[in-house]
Amino acid sequence: MCESCGCGERTLRVTVSRGLLSENERLARENRAWFKRLGVRVVNLVGSPGAGKTSLIEATVRRLPECRVGVIEGDPETRRDAERLSRLGIPVAAVTTGGVCHLDARMVHRAFHELAASPPELLFIENVGNLLCPADFDLGEDLTVVVLSVTEGEDKPEKYPQAFRRASAVVLTKVDLLPHVDFDLARVAELIARINPEARLFPLSVRTGEGLEPWIEFLRA
Amino acid sequence: MCESCGCGERTLRVTVSRGLLSENERLARENRAWFKRLGVRVVNLVGSPGAGKTSLIEATVRRLPECRVGVIEGDPETRRDAERLSRLGIPVAAVTTGGVCHLDARMVHRAFHELAASPPELLFIENVGNLLCPADFDLGEDLTVVVLSVTEGEDKPEKYPQAFRRASAVVLTKVDLLPHVDFDLARVAELIARINPEARLFPLSVRTGEGLEPWIEFLRA
Repeated sequence: MCESCGCGERTLRVTVSRGLLSENERLARENRAWFKRLGVRVVNLVGSPGAGKTSLIEATVRRLPECRVGVIEGDPETRRDAERLSRLGIPVAAVTTGGVCHLDARMVHRAFHELAASPPELLFIENVGNLLCPADFDLGEDLTVVVLSVTEGEDKPEKYPQAFRRASAVVLTKVDLLPHVDFDLARVAELIARINPEARLFPLSVRTGEGLEPWIEFLRA
Repeated sequence: MCESCGCGERTLRVTVSRGLLSENERLARENRAWFKRLGVRVVNLVGSPGAGKTSLIEATVRRLPECRVGVIEGDPETRRDAERLSRLGIPVAAVTTGGVCHLDARMVHRAFHELAASPPELLFIENVGNLLCPADFDLGEDLTVVVLSVTEGEDKPEKYPQAFRRASAVVLTKVDLLPHVDFDLARVAELIARINPEARLFPLSVRTGEGLEPWIEFLRA
């Protein structure tokens, strides 16, 4: 049985992954230069399925009427979230990855062509719902923000450290559910600080509006 | 700018992925034969971070005292869930993937060496918290079960269809939170049925115990 434990194939995988990642780095640098030239500030939102990324964008757009916001909306299937955000009257470019587990710099580059003619001041890139793979791919963003809902459990920063390490901020969503779940905000803040002492924390509820103002102020700054 | 849109690199990625997947299929077949020879029934639990997979295993073990249960516990980092499950007095083999976004048949094969000397009757494989990548990797299981929490939103079956397509059953966890979230059980049941009419549905709450019995009966059968 154990002859199947050889690992030559694994080496091939690692080599190819490295090649793809360095190609991604190159494209991310191009994206970054392009965004800068057009004066677009870019936030890459990363989080699990159902963490509340789309709802956070909706609430943010409503509270930033003075700012031209655009969105690149990544989903493995369907354009439903892109359609939902379009109803806010903002420009949205949909990327349907066909099951691919992350956005990469090339997908973002292609999608941004749809928005570049009239560039937004603030661009949200909503990544595919996944706390792992998106952390490996620089998209050319200014900030990565992890969106973690309080229903996911307080052990997530330790189990998925890569995303938290990259993050300039962590938005803790659905705090209106705190009375109904086991989630110790102080403990999570401590875990995140251990992984990434620079990361700002924004506990909030899109449902009740609680905590949204500090997040909006952070984006304004 | 657009010379960076060439896609030769993408073709390489697809070719390598196909090779890895067919190698995985071969190893999964070996695992399946091994499990069968030892009389082990295997359930592959797939779901987002925080969907409640570990808690579901805990509650199931407590309600199946007549059955020798074992666990292969996949996590991107830390052995915390494996330690938590070991406290139930059951055999647990930990797989820490080092950030890799799914378990594959080889990882399961290696981990099962730790359990094979005294094989369990029922083996749970708790996959890495991710609703996308694990759906591509057969591990040699008898059943794939998707664990979806009601806090993740009712659009998830359509956005992550691959996992639901593979599933023999979907466990809808945290139904005690239904009064506090927008989640229409009937609507989700309909979406799942459209993708996979064979999948059994188990709405339950590990917290209150509600709905656990039908799930336990399903596993007994």
